[in-house]
Amino acid sequence: MKTAIVIGVGPDRGLGAQLCKRFAADGLKVIVAGRTLAALEAVANDIEKAGGKAVPAVADATSETDIVDLFNAAGEDLDLAIYNAGNNTPGKIIDMEADYFEKAWRVACFGGFLFGREAVRRMVPKKSGTLLFTGASASLRGRSNFGAFNSAKAGLRTLAQAMAKEYAADGIHVGHVVVDGAIAGDKIMTRFPDAAGRQETLISIEGIVDGFAFLYRQPERAWSFELDVRTSKEKW
Amino acid sequence: MKTAIVIGVGPDRGLGAQLCKRFAADGLKVIVAGRTLAALEAVANDIEKAGGKAVPAVADATSETDIVDLFNAAGEDLDLAIYNAGNNTPGKIIDMEADYFEKAWRVACFGGFLFGREAVRRMVPKKSGTLLFTGASASLRGRSNFGAFNSAKAGLRTLAQAMAKEYAADGIHVGHVVVDGAIAGDKIMTRFPDAAGRQETLISIEGIVDGFAFLYRQPERAWSFELDVRTSKEKW
Amino acid sequence: MKTAIVIGVGPDRGLGAQLCKRFAADGLKVIVAGRTLAALEAVANDIEKAGGKAVPAVADATSETDIVDLFNAAGEDLDLAIYNAGNNTPGKIIDMEADYFEKAWRVACFGGFLFGREAVRRMVPKKSGTLLFTGASASLRGRSNFGAFNSAKAGLRTLAQAMAKEYAADGIHVGHVVVDGAIAGDKIMTRFPDAAGRQETLISIEGIVDGFAFLYRQPERAWSFELDVRTSKEKW
Amino acid sequence: MKTAIVIGVGPDRGLGAQLCKRFAADGLKVIVAGRTLAALEAVANDIEKAGGKAVPAVADATSETDIVDLFNAAGEDLDLAIYNAGNNTPGKIIDMEADYFEKAWRVACFGGFLFGREAVRRMVPKKSGTLLFTGASASLRGRSNFGAFNSAKAGLRTLAQAMAKEYAADGIHVGHVVVDGAIAGDKIMTRFPDAAGRQETLISIEGIVDGFAFLYRQPERAWSFELDVRTSKEKW
Repeated sequence: MKTAIVIGVGPDRGLGAQLCKRFAADGLKVIVAGRTLAALEAVANDIEKAGGKAVPAVADATSETDIVDLFNAAGEDLDLAIYNAGNNTPGKIIDMEADYFEKAWRVACFGGFLFGREAVRRMVPKKSGTLLFTGASASLRGRSNFGAFNSAKAGLRTLAQAMAKEYAADGIHVGHVVVDGAIAGDKIMTRFPDAAGRQETLISIEGIVDGFAFLYRQPERAWSFELDVRTSKEKW
Repeated sequence: MKTAIVIGVGPDRGLGAQLCKRFAADGLKVIVAGRTLAALEAVANDIEKAGGKAVPAVADATSETDIVDLFNAAGEDLDLAIYNAGNNTPGKIIDMEADYFEKAWRVACFGGFLFGREAVRRMVPKKSGTLLFTGASASLRGRSNFGAFNSAKAGLRTLAQAMAKEYAADGIHVGHVVVDGAIAGDKIMTRFPDAAGRQETLISIEGIVDGFAFLYRQPERAWSFELDVRTSKEKW
Repeated sequence: MKTAIVIGVGPDRGLGAQLCKRFAADGLKVIVAGRTLAALEAVANDIEKAGGKAVPAVADATSETDIVDLFNAAGEDLDLAIYNAGNNTPGKIIDMEADYFEKAWRVACFGGFLFGREAVRRMVPKKSGTLLFTGASASLRGRSNFGAFNSAKAGLRTLAQAMAKEYAADGIHVGHVVVDGAIAGDKIMTRFPDAAGRQETLISIEGIVDGFAFLYRQPERAWSFELDVRTSKEKW
Repeated sequence: MKTAIVIGVGPDRGLGAQLCKRFAADGLKVIVAGRTLAALEAVANDIEKAGGKAVPAVADATSETDIVDLFNAAGEDLDLAIYNAGNNTPGKIIDMEADYFEKAWRVACFGGFLFGREAVRRMVPKKSGTLLFTGASASLRGRSNFGAFNSAKAGLRTLAQAMAKEYAADGIHVGHVVVDGAIAGDKIMTRFPDAAGRQETLISIEGIVDGFAFLYRQPERAWSFELDVRTSKEKW
């Protein structure tokens, strides 16, 4: 059974969880990876109840051991790996602790390296597989108050682009989805109680998941590296 | 019946013709537009035989009258408009006739303006519709021997980006598909007899069409502006 | 005596005129080209009074004959050619006359092709020369209300980039200066009477001219293609 | 006396050393910072012999303490800070140790954060100062075999861009010089004994230094963020 690993899974109404549910519904066994066991189990249970196959796996995206273990547990049929970890880390550089800047990079970029490396180590021998990264508009340019996040996300995107070129000849499809704006998920709903009243300004999670699914389905003679996604209300 | 206009339709094994066939198969009435009536009729006949609805329409993409007529004939149900006109126009600037540079622009960029303008004139009042443009890697950067084509395609892409922002609030989705490499179609097969022997280096037309179809289906809360498409063998 | 052609020269407090004065002060004979003889003569007279060498030349940047004549008149010592023609052409695409869109391109992009082609025709045989273009932030991305200008300026920039690559091996340095914001010149002062009160938000003409002069002086082993210029107050 | 800090100083025929010498010749006191005392002393001695003012300072660009000490020692007159640390770190991702990827980032990007932060902490209260970073073509896009370097340099560039926007209103000019190709310095000469025979393909150090000097001299109403530098022989 084809297997997917999705890391960066949190609450049910979040991008990570919905990616898991979509690919499970599409017939893949999904390794549901993230930091909070309860959340992972909830997602995996939903999938199993719906007749799919899912395994919760607690993993810290920045821990080499955790990531290696995660891929080892995925088995031979790994066909899709999605790196969805990394939160926005706002703040002015002048006030910023070095540790904060480093942690922003560690989660958004270094974890992507560990994850991507383990993915290609397993996919290259089979000459097939898809590796996808979640990006943001912050990946594309620097902006005041977002230096740490910008730096980390640009580092991830450029790594992904280098890997796309490095492993294309091996049959590995590497892609990057630029999420431009706030997602209509639990995170934003909890933080901004008014968010429910402006749903049309929040990106549809299903729409983003469609983008990942589209990239995954592409034939080797028509691969995309990058896809941007935003609502019609977004200024860009 | 929802209606699509596709301009830049030539031989059956070409991107324009296959875009028509896909959207007809997906249930749209398709206005099949291009310069050669016989080619347009062949595509429209195939569609009708397969149970779809298609109308051939001879139109010069660079003629304002032709483009206005084309959109007038499309009727009230216009939901999708695809600008696929424009060929590569190589050549060194030092040797280039002014007329050649101008024609490159007229087909690849000015025609896109006429087409895009007529599309939004009909879509904005209905607050819905999708307008897609065919781009190329040449749209993204200048390169020796491709100055005329680069200039025209970059002009088209930036126009498309401006329109994407200008009409998003009106519910119009504008997108741009960057075709990076040679397409596995009649044009390349005729010009390069050895092309059949290196199919894996030629972009799958179906794969490109999938990209257009994906953009067309996106919900208003998850629109993409741009999608790149290339084979795994392409150097980029 | 090394000769420069600067086209797009208008009032004295404008970028074109100040480029002429700077390069004349630096010892070049300057062909002062533009549409209004009185303005050109005023600039040329100032230069001559200051001990420099200048020749006014009425020329329409979009006329092939005018541009060929202009370069023929410059003589053997042509060393620098600057294309500074092209005004902002705002407007929504939905309301735009085809003629307006075309004129925007003709001045901002097609004229740049004619000018650039005539420049390299004379510089390549000598294996030396510098060709510079005035760009804008509009050259880099599309924005609502600026589709025509964006398209034309992006077309010019990508042409310049292609030429930079096409003629580098011939010893021709091609550059592009991105002017990001309003210039502290006559044009803005006349149009916006309050502009004098917000000088710090208007780009220093001398500063832009410094950029052109810097590019012109670069040795063949350290050429820049592009330079952006903006005030510290500009949002970008 | 206006003071500059330049970090990333190595052998005399290297970019760091020549930056020090240029700004010393232009009248600044220069803090010559790097890892190897002997090299730093040699540069500082040369400067002093030529009548300039220089202070060697051993500092590890990735050490927060070292960087803080460096800026503390620079005193009140700090006017220019240049981050020139970071070497190319080639390698395929599939074979790469996590530690190697991290070190690439630590030198090329994290050190730039520490350095930039300390610079703005001292410049913002005075409402003036210039902060410049050395970039590479690797900063702009990912490429096979350069994933670690690409990721780190893109992270640095995007950080620099965020800082340029964040501190412009405070009068701080932040710039980024994209060095596109190999530099005609000791490093390349030592590594590739044939390099002397193809000098015209190696970027002139003086030309790069001119770029830094140009950015430093720009008035607040005409700042550039980015400048690319390459030889006429470079393919790009």
